[in-house]
Amino acid sequence: MKKYQHRLELQVRDYECDIQGIVNNAIYQNYLEHARHQFLLSKGVDFIDLSSKGIDLVVVRIELDYKLPLRPDDAFWVGSNIEKISKIKIGFNQSIYRLNDERLVLQAKVIGAAIDNAGKPCRTTTLDSLFD
Amino acid sequence: MKKYQHRLELQVRDYECDIQGIVNNAIYQNYLEHARHQFLLSKGVDFIDLSSKGIDLVVVRIELDYKLPLRPDDAFWVGSNIEKISKIKIGFNQSIYRLNDERLVLQAKVIGAAIDNAGKPCRTTTLDSLFD
Amino acid sequence: MKKYQHRLELQVRDYECDIQGIVNNAIYQNYLEHARHQFLLSKGVDFIDLSSKGIDLVVVRIELDYKLPLRPDDAFWVGSNIEKISKIKIGFNQSIYRLNDERLVLQAKVIGAAIDNAGKPCRTTTLDSLFD
Amino acid sequence: MKKYQHRLELQVRDYECDIQGIVNNAIYQNYLEHARHQFLLSKGVDFIDLSSKGIDLVVVRIELDYKLPLRPDDAFWVGSNIEKISKIKIGFNQSIYRLNDERLVLQAKVIGAAIDNAGKPCRTTTLDSLFD
Repeated sequence: MKKYQHRLELQVRDYECDIQGIVNNAIYQNYLEHARHQFLLSKGVDFIDLSSKGIDLVVVRIELDYKLPLRPDDAFWVGSNIEKISKIKIGFNQSIYRLNDERLVLQAKVIGAAIDNAGKPCRTTTLDSLFD
Repeated sequence: MKKYQHRLELQVRDYECDIQGIVNNAIYQNYLEHARHQFLLSKGVDFIDLSSKGIDLVVVRIELDYKLPLRPDDAFWVGSNIEKISKIKIGFNQSIYRLNDERLVLQAKVIGAAIDNAGKPCRTTTLDSLFD
Repeated sequence: MKKYQHRLELQVRDYECDIQGIVNNAIYQNYLEHARHQFLLSKGVDFIDLSSKGIDLVVVRIELDYKLPLRPDDAFWVGSNIEKISKIKIGFNQSIYRLNDERLVLQAKVIGAAIDNAGKPCRTTTLDSLFD
Repeated sequence: MKKYQHRLELQVRDYECDIQGIVNNAIYQNYLEHARHQFLLSKGVDFIDLSSKGIDLVVVRIELDYKLPLRPDDAFWVGSNIEKISKIKIGFNQSIYRLNDERLVLQAKVIGAAIDNAGKPCRTTTLDSLFD
């Protein structure tokens, strides 16, 4: 198993499951976003605070490979790594593992960028500081 | 603009937007799923009905390119095309366009498969019939 | 059936249903909120616009009576009436009916108030204008 | 502060907040449902298991008083008490408190019932056992 810079443990809630009895596809994006924001927060980058200053962190591309569905009450953890892609883009490699048997549930590549009020990509010292 | 086999018009609801004032990333998967299910239904394939018979249609991979954020009350449409990838996999090419100016909002490639009760991929005549 | 000042037709989306195969309880609040915002918009009161000016419309109390569960693909409509409760409170009486047989699905009483940046209730001419 | 038979600690996730920068009204119902299911599970009553046996636990009425909005990253806890209302109805009194200052966020009364496959209220020994 890969090493991760950040690890977040969570548990499936019943309302996150759909008619098939498994976690709905879109919900995994919630898990991944929450893990990314907690990861950034642990490094001193506050998504909410940046937004109030007119800098929005947005996702520009996401790739998700669904390997194994999570079910009600499953405990799992999200592992996240971050890498610098360019002056204005950062990448996250994220995986979700089921806690009881460490089986891979989902793999994700997420590319994010900072944009200003006008919707233009912008370079911020805040994100630069992630890779110092 | 590409031609689409299926078109669904929708409108952003305020609760789908997050603190940044734009539709949350995960919500686009809701839009895309709803469009796929309506598309399949229009071709006689009922997601709910299949599920009750022990055949689940699941997403195995999804790629999303976010081009332009949708905002409160924006009207938009989802265009969907379907293609056969293998005996057990089907692919959807889906795009979302803002209605008032036809600007591209999001592009998606979605690969789905049918799985049986044991979680194994299975071939169903129902899906085969999509490509007759 | 009562008369309503505002009527909004919607359709259940599969992802709104949970493991029991029926629309999840919390989702009805989404439907009701969307109907209220559309209703206010039709009377020239823009929830988003007010928020950007530092005035938040918030719900202070809600009562929901669940009569009949909605299921996948059910079409339904939300009927809404508004009344003035006090200088700073407004009330909504909302009902949801299934479209094909007009059976009552849910009844709701919602009390809302306008609050300012400090979280204090405030009187706005915008809301006053609703009852001129 | 009242005593509660069950206590569940949670934390607000950014995607649960809407344009106003506070947790969306409907999301509190998610929190309350999750707390009720965990509470029932701690007493040996499994919502999912019952559902697979054809017995659905449904909410028939809910009253919510919103006292104080939760914001991004707020930690909070849900306190839940259960009481028998009749042979087929049970009641939950639930409150949400912000963790750092124990201020009351929301108060709820929830009335639930068990229904069978035909949608009729039914008495189950499982629920009876809650009050032995």
